[in-house]
Amino acid sequence: MNSQELFEQIKIKKSFLCVGLDTDKNKIPAHLLDAEDPIYEFNKAIVDATHDLCVAYKPNLAFYESEGIEGLKSLERTVKYIRSNYPEIFLIADAKRGDIGNTSKMYAKAFFENMDFDSVTVAPYMGADSVTPFLSYENKWVILLALTSNKGAFDFQFMEENGTRLFEKVLETSKEWGTPENMMYVVGATKAESLTDIRKIIPNSFLLVPGVGAQGGSLSEVAKYGLNDTCGLLVNSSRGIIYAGSDEDFALFARGEALKVQTEMSSLLEEKGIA
Amino acid sequence: MNSQELFEQIKIKKSFLCVGLDTDKNKIPAHLLDAEDPIYEFNKAIVDATHDLCVAYKPNLAFYESEGIEGLKSLERTVKYIRSNYPEIFLIADAKRGDIGNTSKMYAKAFFENMDFDSVTVAPYMGADSVTPFLSYENKWVILLALTSNKGAFDFQFMEENGTRLFEKVLETSKEWGTPENMMYVVGATKAESLTDIRKIIPNSFLLVPGVGAQGGSLSEVAKYGLNDTCGLLVNSSRGIIYAGSDEDFALFARGEALKVQTEMSSLLEEKGIA
Repeated sequence: MNSQELFEQIKIKKSFLCVGLDTDKNKIPAHLLDAEDPIYEFNKAIVDATHDLCVAYKPNLAFYESEGIEGLKSLERTVKYIRSNYPEIFLIADAKRGDIGNTSKMYAKAFFENMDFDSVTVAPYMGADSVTPFLSYENKWVILLALTSNKGAFDFQFMEENGTRLFEKVLETSKEWGTPENMMYVVGATKAESLTDIRKIIPNSFLLVPGVGAQGGSLSEVAKYGLNDTCGLLVNSSRGIIYAGSDEDFALFARGEALKVQTEMSSLLEEKGIA
Repeated sequence: MNSQELFEQIKIKKSFLCVGLDTDKNKIPAHLLDAEDPIYEFNKAIVDATHDLCVAYKPNLAFYESEGIEGLKSLERTVKYIRSNYPEIFLIADAKRGDIGNTSKMYAKAFFENMDFDSVTVAPYMGADSVTPFLSYENKWVILLALTSNKGAFDFQFMEENGTRLFEKVLETSKEWGTPENMMYVVGATKAESLTDIRKIIPNSFLLVPGVGAQGGSLSEVAKYGLNDTCGLLVNSSRGIIYAGSDEDFALFARGEALKVQTEMSSLLEEKGIA
């Protein structure tokens, strides 16, 4: 998917919501545990109930890997289901990979060829040759970690050299590797005020923003500092949506929460004159 | 495995060699491709031929993930084979993971519980809460990326704040999270001269050193600056050993290359008065 197609979807759905499929067997409704593949059944129900309210889904790989080979089968089934039924969805593999060149190539193959993800999150620590192998696929995206939403973000990401902080250096340096057509950035909602500085460096890039909801970030703050003329934001919510209910009607509760977020997003887009 | 047990193995084998199982279907001998699980058969032969010359094996996850679910089956079989037949081996999952706290916990489960690895490589970018969940397992290890062997290492790892470079800040900060009993560091052989500075910060920690061989690092330089009284080094070689031969006798060639490295390591340990 290219940026124009993504923006079209945002306008059609009046939403820049990404739903995080951080599906944990210990948290899904009990009745699903009798199914052959409980994780897939859960994801399928969540997707069916929310697909018209969001533009992206983001499974975090850790939740699937922790279930071993069965977990990866659940992930593959989920990706196939979304691709077949809702081809307009932008699919993010939240994998936070990154390795030396020939190895990053293998990860790119895993996410872009074996599984048909549109994008993969990548950690910047190892520099250019760990990121660029992901950029050689047409209409596929790297989503580079810049400023994360967790407490540990303060350990290294704010390190400063000649007035430039590490997360800013990541933005500036990586502009040489890719373009706003194949590279997005992770910027945590818990640090929304930093979005002003970030937008000065990458005015046109899409940002994937975790941390709204369970982690405490504010959607209106993120929109205030982060929206650009083509939206430029994908705001993720995981636990707040997928675990809104815990019984047989869990998907309805998930839809309810997604609808609340989408309604707020619709207003924010309208204020900005976008949709 | 604890550090004392690892050091004992180093003394017994007069070796601090780690063999990287970066097994690529496109590079293994053609006759293996008829096997039910070519990657596993290749690994099994390499392990049988080299286990007495090395103390550790390090599969890089990317090579297995790029083969999809079949690749992960090959990895699980390889881990089980090594555990059953050579329980004295230290097993490293070269995965370079790292995510927010509750997610890193899931990765820890994947590598330490589902698969019985002794250690996993972790990227430091997201800070404390992305690393500490891996440290709660007894006799399991985090191997934190500090200074990597690739060209891209220069993009961010040498960023400097008040005379401290990022890789040094990673070493200093992470000393608060773990101990030399549950944390090692990745330091590339291609930057061996930096080992002097690194040893000042972490004199007692084990270092996992990639980059000797195919990437051009020198073993004697690494030993000169990196060895400590309990060895403190695991030097990795992947391609130089596992792809030394390309025909039916490939394992013999691998053994030959491993023996060359082990012979040099034996001398270096003797010079240092260790083994």
